[in-house]
Amino acid sequence: METQPIRVGIIGAGFVGAALVSLLVDEARVRALTDAATVPVELVGVAVRDVTKARAGVPSELVVNDADELFAKDLDVLVEVIGGIEPAKSYIERALKSGVSVVTANKALLAAHGYELSQLANENEVDLFYEAAVAGGIPILRSLRSSLAGEQILRVMGIVNGTTNFILSKMSNEGLGYDEVLAEAQALGFAEADPTADVAGFDPAAKIAILSSLAFGTKLEGEEISKEGITGIRAVDVEFARRSGYVIKLLAIAERVGDSGLSRRVQPTLVPAQHPLASVNGAMNAVFVDGAKAGPLMWLGQGAGGVPTATAVLGDVLDAARNRASRRHDVPFTYDNRLHFVDEGELSSAFYISIDVDDEPGVLATVAKIFADHGVSILSMEQAGEGAEARLSFVTHEAKTDAVRATVAALADLPKVERVGACLRVLSGGL
Amino acid sequence: METQPIRVGIIGAGFVGAALVSLLVDEARVRALTDAATVPVELVGVAVRDVTKARAGVPSELVVNDADELFAKDLDVLVEVIGGIEPAKSYIERALKSGVSVVTANKALLAAHGYELSQLANENEVDLFYEAAVAGGIPILRSLRSSLAGEQILRVMGIVNGTTNFILSKMSNEGLGYDEVLAEAQALGFAEADPTADVAGFDPAAKIAILSSLAFGTKLEGEEISKEGITGIRAVDVEFARRSGYVIKLLAIAERVGDSGLSRRVQPTLVPAQHPLASVNGAMNAVFVDGAKAGPLMWLGQGAGGVPTATAVLGDVLDAARNRASRRHDVPFTYDNRLHFVDEGELSSAFYISIDVDDEPGVLATVAKIFADHGVSILSMEQAGEGAEARLSFVTHEAKTDAVRATVAALADLPKVERVGACLRVLSGGL
Repeated sequence: METQPIRVGIIGAGFVGAALVSLLVDEARVRALTDAATVPVELVGVAVRDVTKARAGVPSELVVNDADELFAKDLDVLVEVIGGIEPAKSYIERALKSGVSVVTANKALLAAHGYELSQLANENEVDLFYEAAVAGGIPILRSLRSSLAGEQILRVMGIVNGTTNFILSKMSNEGLGYDEVLAEAQALGFAEADPTADVAGFDPAAKIAILSSLAFGTKLEGEEISKEGITGIRAVDVEFARRSGYVIKLLAIAERVGDSGLSRRVQPTLVPAQHPLASVNGAMNAVFVDGAKAGPLMWLGQGAGGVPTATAVLGDVLDAARNRASRRHDVPFTYDNRLHFVDEGELSSAFYISIDVDDEPGVLATVAKIFADHGVSILSMEQAGEGAEARLSFVTHEAKTDAVRATVAALADLPKVERVGACLRVLSGGL
Repeated sequence: METQPIRVGIIGAGFVGAALVSLLVDEARVRALTDAATVPVELVGVAVRDVTKARAGVPSELVVNDADELFAKDLDVLVEVIGGIEPAKSYIERALKSGVSVVTANKALLAAHGYELSQLANENEVDLFYEAAVAGGIPILRSLRSSLAGEQILRVMGIVNGTTNFILSKMSNEGLGYDEVLAEAQALGFAEADPTADVAGFDPAAKIAILSSLAFGTKLEGEEISKEGITGIRAVDVEFARRSGYVIKLLAIAERVGDSGLSRRVQPTLVPAQHPLASVNGAMNAVFVDGAKAGPLMWLGQGAGGVPTATAVLGDVLDAARNRASRRHDVPFTYDNRLHFVDEGELSSAFYISIDVDDEPGVLATVAKIFADHGVSILSMEQAGEGAEARLSFVTHEAKTDAVRATVAALADLPKVERVGACLRVLSGGL
């Protein structure tokens, strides 16, 4: 064992930073960490914006009030947990260029500059790890980097946004409407005042971009990811799904298409109730991987929260420390530009489509003809509602997305169709 | 990158061995492996018992017919996939003593001699990895060794035996009886002609011993594990569980008790239907971990099969290669003898108890008095059956196992009780 300790500095002492400090000043934990790293790990400083603010659990002798002071401490590993693009990016670049490995949980930064930062780490022969940026406490990135390094991955599907999963779970379990549950989620702090990043799918898109970089060698930036959110989902859709043996989940998917294609998308999906993803409830996260050889694999755990996220950061610190001790670094991922992005319209899926119609004779015949005209075959139909208005719910056989979109557009143009309430994919390729 | 390749030899070319060879001769996979290991990985030989037998996918120029010939090839890593105690143990000892890292999937050998072999590896500064020995293709051991190295683990629960999970899933999904399903499992090759090791809980006990060594620092040998099998479970028990919102699963559990205690046990358990372990069906395996900081985590995947198991072996080969390349080795686990084994009778749990009784006036009062006399409080009761015989099914509040056992013994002694049909634990401590 080397006796020279690995010197760790942290920038930021918010929820994750403070939780990490409390782990790194806990003697039993540091002993376990040292055993596993085969080298002592020592926290040498925590840079915060305002040193006068008392921080629970952060020893005052470790606190410094600017990055220069922290960098002066001869760091081996810098942990960045301030979030946002700047000054986080400058700090990380400075660390990497001076031969310091970096651990970050900064999804936004990775989504914007992940590829250049990982290149910079590689050029400087240091590590850039970001386990905590995806699915909080679940060690999925490390598994993709190590256990599945020799595996051909066919598909990665994640429930990686706690806010939307909380909302959908509550709608499903309690029969409530979207607006009602969103308001409750906001009151409980599970949803932001402006929930757009979550409910419109931007956050899960950034996460599937990171997963896809490790699974498929794409760049970290979230280009070419089609996004559908959950704002249009109604209580009646959730209830139809339940009756039909499904649960609606917002899935972030990266999937190999044919030999050289890759599809990336975020979309609410009807998941069969027996599928392991169906029972991932509330703020839990899960990532499901289909391997060509390993078969189906799933990881489940807490997707957010300072303490679980800090444990993910700690795992990265451990890896970085082990690497420093043996004077090596990981290749963060292999950029493989052989896969081309496949437009979603080209993909086939079964769909659930729900339309509100005037309940008049002949309306079903008219609607059914529209489906037939577009070559979309109906698997099952259910009519609900009484009086002047009725709701028709269809599940289709597998059909090309473009054809289904054209069907929906034509349905919306029918005078007797009040509105198209839902057009959601049904998960195929079971367990 | 070092240019000297890591030389890998395999002993055994059964299902797992042959699948591993096919992965190691696949050029794209070896390239990915080499990237991840930061060193070339080269398969240099496969020792088999009978070289004249053609093996699909195993290139004949790699085949050698004895271990001496394989050891003469200047190995860096030996993969042992012959199984059983001898000659596997001698080969592994020989490798470790001559500075060769070892990857094995040999659960029986680890259960018998795991601690001494891991000590031997450590003394010789090489690795002994055995990811494939637990839960087939699921990379749970690596996660325990790396991502969770700094974590205090409170409980590990696994569905780690495919045979019993297949049987219980089929009983549950199709309302069939144990004997009927066992016969079908045997016909399909999912159960051995003598299924004792599986259905009586020996196989999951060996696996929880390995998990517990990494989670709690116990020795690898499976001492002090109480075992209950699934042979006594009837279709009526499965049906009662379903109606009450549970699924019966054979769980292998290692759990911290208080500050210094550890309980290890294998037992059929009523798992709440919403719990992620409840939807682990058929031959799938899953391992559920409660971390003090990381919270609940679950891994799910294929528990058996040559190809998934070979991917787990490959992950170990990759780790061993990376370590060789940087001239280091992992400490396989830290033996921590501070935890004492807690007798199961001391533990508390809610129980499901089912008894067949003569349907006479006063029988329920008599039975209820027995529960009360032993301080076991009843949460719910259900009576089924008509005519001379009835079945009484109880769910208790949390009670000490010893008290429940005494209750069951006293019930069995009652003249009006024909038999005690079931006495199963109900999983506590939800998600």
